[in-house]
Amino acid sequence: MVVKSELKLIKSLQQKKYRNEHGLFVVEGKKSIEEVVNSNFRCYGIYVTEPLEVNVTKDKVNLISRKELAQISSLKNPNGFLGVFYIPEKINEFQSDWIMVLDGVQDPGNLGTIIRLCDWFGVVDIVCSTDTVDCYNPKVLQATMGSITRVNVQYKPLDAFLKSTQLPIYGTFMNGDNVNTTQLPEKGIMVMGNEGKGVSDAIAKLCTHRLTIPQYGGETTESLNVASATAILLHEIRK
Amino acid sequence: MVVKSELKLIKSLQQKKYRNEHGLFVVEGKKSIEEVVNSNFRCYGIYVTEPLEVNVTKDKVNLISRKELAQISSLKNPNGFLGVFYIPEKINEFQSDWIMVLDGVQDPGNLGTIIRLCDWFGVVDIVCSTDTVDCYNPKVLQATMGSITRVNVQYKPLDAFLKSTQLPIYGTFMNGDNVNTTQLPEKGIMVMGNEGKGVSDAIAKLCTHRLTIPQYGGETTESLNVASATAILLHEIRK
Repeated sequence: MVVKSELKLIKSLQQKKYRNEHGLFVVEGKKSIEEVVNSNFRCYGIYVTEPLEVNVTKDKVNLISRKELAQISSLKNPNGFLGVFYIPEKINEFQSDWIMVLDGVQDPGNLGTIIRLCDWFGVVDIVCSTDTVDCYNPKVLQATMGSITRVNVQYKPLDAFLKSTQLPIYGTFMNGDNVNTTQLPEKGIMVMGNEGKGVSDAIAKLCTHRLTIPQYGGETTESLNVASATAILLHEIRK
Repeated sequence: MVVKSELKLIKSLQQKKYRNEHGLFVVEGKKSIEEVVNSNFRCYGIYVTEPLEVNVTKDKVNLISRKELAQISSLKNPNGFLGVFYIPEKINEFQSDWIMVLDGVQDPGNLGTIIRLCDWFGVVDIVCSTDTVDCYNPKVLQATMGSITRVNVQYKPLDAFLKSTQLPIYGTFMNGDNVNTTQLPEKGIMVMGNEGKGVSDAIAKLCTHRLTIPQYGGETTESLNVASATAILLHEIRK
């Protein structure tokens, strides 16, 4: 039995403001919930329309009606499984050789894909500008496919962070050095910019190296999607 | 003045069945409409809530109400610009050195991103299995950002097509040769599989080469997203 106030709380977590206020976020989908349950993230509660065998104490699993699930889900077609977890404590140390820096990435699907890519390529430290989309946004989490539990995402003013580092800072631009012929070092920072505007001027000035992924299509082609560009750069970092 | 039956026709184009029946498809967004208008695609009509200067005869531009636009748009928040274009004649010849083959790609966003990538990397020939999502699906078109006008997408049974080619056929698998140490030829076919199941067994048998993008994260990481993998493989083809 789930009381109304609890449903209201969970529904409010679709908004960043309330996620931060309560220190909680929502994951939907059986497989994603299992991934988060089996990580070191703490579980607040699981809400399902059919019994689910999952690695949490039984009192945390709540059987609810389809109607109740529809109320708290952010999906048009809820899939029957919703989990609420505590947002983990911030880790301020860096663990990986390369650090991914995101300067104003806006699209939740892009951020989710980038987090999944960073996980795949073992670049677990991700530093986001404060105007980058929140990594606990439901649409971001849907695209991460559980990878959120294995990376360390921080939000902070990029300017101060980049000024404080001794690492080489690589940025992606339209007119940089060809990434195919550039030797990347063992450690560094890779800056990816906003979908429409790219890396902001203030941050561009702090980049010590400028990279470009060369284009082979016609001249009218749109720029590469930021998640596609990230895939290629992470691949180059790891070669 | 747009009559009801015309609005009904346009709304029906959200479904593949009616797109094929009428030979028409819908593009939303000012920038995307301009890209399609300036390509060799024929325009059926433009529907806008405010005047738009665009490269078509004036009688094709229809000023409609926000309410009418909401009726025909596939977007939750219509952006004020909707264009209807004729699906172009099929081209059965190949124009590029490499051919991208998609075996059951289901997610519209993934297909859109792949089309945009193929355009960027100049791999303009894309052959899709008949169960791959339709390239004139509104969500696909949103992700292609106009690239649809510069590629040649065909739908056909892959089995017969791959049996008929003399080109080397590269497929992406979990246990293939490391793409970082494999020399790719000047011409070939690259097969990408379904999001969950990868390349189907029947098609896997026809691949003459098996490639893998090596993973660097923990062992529990989900596989690479198919669009991310495509970005990396196209980049390798063009290096």
